Parts: sequence; C-alpha cells; structure tokens
Amino acid sequence: MSKKSVRKLLRVRDGQRASEAAAGDKPLSSGDKAADKQIVEELAREISDLQDVLYAQREHKILIVLQGMDTSGKDGTVRGVFGKIDPLGVSSVAFKAPTLEEKSHDFLWRIHRHVPAQGELTIFNRSHYEDVLITRVHDWISEAECKRRYAHIRDFERMLAETGTVIMKFFLHISSREQKSRLEERIANPDKHWKFDPDDLKEREYWQTYQRLYMRAIHATDANHAPWYVIPADSKTHRNLAIASIVLETLRELKPSYPPGNPEYAKLKVS
Amino acid sequence: MSKKSVRKLLRVRDGQRASEAAAGDKPLSSGDKAADKQIVEELAREISDLQDVLYAQREHKILIVLQGMDTSGKDGTVRGVFGKIDPLGVSSVAFKAPTLEEKSHDFLWRIHRHVPAQGELTIFNRSHYEDVLITRVHDWISEAECKRRYAHIRDFERMLAETGTVIMKFFLHISSREQKSRLEERIANPDKHWKFDPDDLKEREYWQTYQRLYMRAIHATDANHAPWYVIPADSKTHRNLAIASIVLETLRELKPSYPPGNPEYAKLKVS
Repeated sequence: MSKKSVRKLLRVRDGQRASEAAAGDKPLSSGDKAADKQIVEELAREISDLQDVLYAQREHKILIVLQGMDTSGKDGTVRGVFGKIDPLGVSSVAFKAPTLEEKSHDFLWRIHRHVPAQGELTIFNRSHYEDVLITRVHDWISEAECKRRYAHIRDFERMLAETGTVIMKFFLHISSREQKSRLEERIANPDKHWKFDPDDLKEREYWQTYQRLYMRAIHATDANHAPWYVIPADSKTHRNLAIASIVLETLRELKPSYPPGNPEYAKLKVS
Repeated sequence: MSKKSVRKLLRVRDGQRASEAAAGDKPLSSGDKAADKQIVEELAREISDLQDVLYAQREHKILIVLQGMDTSGKDGTVRGVFGKIDPLGVSSVAFKAPTLEEKSHDFLWRIHRHVPAQGELTIFNRSHYEDVLITRVHDWISEAECKRRYAHIRDFERMLAETGTVIMKFFLHISSREQKSRLEERIANPDKHWKFDPDDLKEREYWQTYQRLYMRAIHATDANHAPWYVIPADSKTHRNLAIASIVLETLRELKPSYPPGNPEYAKLKVS
C-alpha cells in the first residue's frame, strides 16, 4: 500500500459509525507483528528526524490531538510514536478534569495556553473534545450548548490552522470487548493500579452513548485543515503503525528544511 | 570508579575556579570514545526507565538546570541524556531573553510557572541564573541587586526542595578555545546558522567576566538540596557521561517504585 493512501484510508468518512468490529481492523498490517513493530520503530525515528528540522526551521506548529475511551492507548501512542523525539522538539499535555480556576473560564481557555509555538510539536492527551463528550454524556451541558461548542471548536481550530498550525486529530477506536480485557488486566496487576480509577467502570456503562457522541463530535468538527482519523486500536501495534504513518505523511508534505544560511556569517571571524 | 563517587567528584569545590585546562578533563572516560558512547546510551535508557516509574509514582519532582556559555552543549545534553525519555514524563523549557510582560514581574515569576509537578522531570535550558549572569556582566543590575538575587535564588530553591523537588544544577564548562572552534564550525555550516547570532561573538569578548561571575553565582547558590556540578564539557561524550551518571545516581537514590496496588480493586468485576 502506498504511504499516500493512509490518510485517505483512515480519514473519517461521511456517515461512519464506530462499530465494534471495525476496532479490530488491521488494514496496514503486513500480517507479521514483529515486522510491523520494526516498521513502527523506523517511522518513529523518521518522525524524530523531521521534527529536528522543523524545530530548527521554526515555521510550522504541529498539534496532535489524541482522544479515545479509557484504556484506548493514548499514553501508549505518546510512547510508541513520539517517544523517539528528543525533549527539545516535543511536549505532551494531559488534560484532566478542569480545576476550579479553569472551570471559571470558557472551555478553550486552558487549551489555548498549550497550543504549539513555531517549531514545536505538541501532543494533546485528551483535549477540548472532552468538553463535548463526558460533559454531554452526563448532561452537564445542554444539547444547545453542546452544538454551540462544536461551532466554537470549529472556529478555534480554523484560527489555529490559518495562523500556521498543522492539526491532526486521532480517535483511538477500541471495541467494548477490548476495553473489558484491558480493564481486567489493570485490575489484576497492582503495578497498574495507578492508572486505574473505579470510576472508569461507571463511565464504561455509558459506552454506547460515548460512541454515538464521539462520532457526532468528529463529524461536526472534521475539516481538511483539522482532519479526524478513526484509528482501529484494538491492536496496539497496528494503532501505532497507523498513527505514525499519518503523522509522517503529513510532516513530509511540509518539506521541512533548515532555514537558509546567512552568507554574511561566512565572513565573520571568531577572535 | 564506583558510581557513587561521580557526584562527589564533580560537585563544585570550595574556591574552585573555571580554568581553561579543566574544561578538557575526562575523569570518567574509559579512554575509548565508542565505549563511552555506549555507556551513555545505557545510562540514558536507565534514566528513562526510572522516570517511567517516577511518573507513575507521582511523588518526586525532578528539576535539572543546565547553564553554560554559548555552544557549551545544553541542547546536546537534552538530546543525549534525556532523549530516551518518552514525552509523558519529561519536558524542557528554553528560557530566552525575557519578554516585556516577564520583565514587568520579578525575575523568578516566569521560572516558577515552569517548575515540575509531582511525577515530572523538567529540564531548564538556561534559567533564573541568567538573571545574575548576563545582567551583571553588562551592568544592567547593580552589584547590590545581584547579591540580593543570590539570596532570592537560595530562598526559592530551598522552598522548592522542601516541597518535594529534587534539584540538580549543571555548569557545562567549556574552554575559550573550544568555544572558538564550535563558533567557527557554526559559521562555516549554513545548516547551523539558525543556532548562531552575531551577538554571540560580542558576548564572547566578556569571556573572563562570565567565568568569574559564573563561579561566583555557583558558590553563592550551591547547597546540598540544590547542588552545583561543574562538568568538564570540551568533550561532548564525556559531558553526557558525567551528567547521565549524576542524574542516574540521584534518581536511584529515590528508590522509585510503583505506588502500592489497592487490594479492593482485585474484587472488582468489569461488566
């Protein structure tokens, strides 16, 4: 499969739903897990190399949004896809439940502070999309407010894009069955309890509502300048393979290059 | 050489000066550069592993301060020593010339915002120490103000330490001769012009004053809870070897461990 097609292949499609079966798809897999892992390593290394140049170039701003249900692999993606970039060029921001101060502002206030500057690549581990997901699932905001927020998000992301931000949004799509097995694994392993909150089990009861609201938010905010990709994520290796492919394809298209040298500098003498 | 001794060996000593010759020392080297590089790789990997646990533990806050003359290798250290930590657990902050807003506050205001939270490892690429270095070299602040700032820094760092921050401060000590050759290399290579500013040559004229003020600031702010290490940094490999050894030694002493599991969790059922 040509690399070109990965973005097309996984970009959200009109009317697409988050089906239980589709979470297990592996359209990019070679069929050999070890080989797939090897490819992920190579892609991650190339992403790191390109980011070094983007950092020097200080022109583009790269924003990666990771969303997905509990255990869908957001942390694992940060590690597996972006773990090879050195700390000069990358930062990740985990958005938790908003603080009192954050809640006393509009929902985009805390987000805006963390968007990437020129030369930076920033990963949002959860994001402003929580403000149209968990908030709506539990009826903390009305339907009218939710739709206003879709529009606020569209406007905000368009502004970011028009001021030089390259945006990629990933929905890490796992099946309910896969989440069950991952939650059971966390419960069984005391070293993983720090990642577990009994409330996760309560949220799981709203699975269908989450799936529906996820896809509705995605359809409402998908745009060519801020595309949503639906990533089959039951397989961790395939998830990383898909995301790394899309990131790399996008970064390559920017044709990163070191800023031009200054011919005057060549004449300087160091005493 | 036992690992234990690296911190002792490179901790700033009473009355120590930044001599031209000492910048080329390699007390930790095996004499074989390739072997040294291999060791740096292993140390960096172990730092990454320990940071994974510190991140889960969310108890300690790790603050690394990198200071040194232009070209002394601050970026290279971030890459070489901390480049293997995935973005979940690490962030680096490059402090540049302060903005108008930053200048209209006390000098620690912009610094305080970026100190690490529990579980985080933060690297300061330049820091509040610039406010007693370049500012004093050019007489932008008086001698009395400079000494007041030493005291402000001591108080600030003591407060950070007493509230759970583990602080390590590194002076990347290069010789004037080595800086000359690195600046010439940057000038000669157009792909490195983005890292070069003709003003760097002007700062170089104040070399001796910088060395004197560096050591004075270091002696004034060295403390067991916020130790200064003087790192011979003419050799990049040795620099990384020394810093990685000290960081690792310090992290190991914290005996990081996953937070205890919750026995109640084992009884939970995922439906």
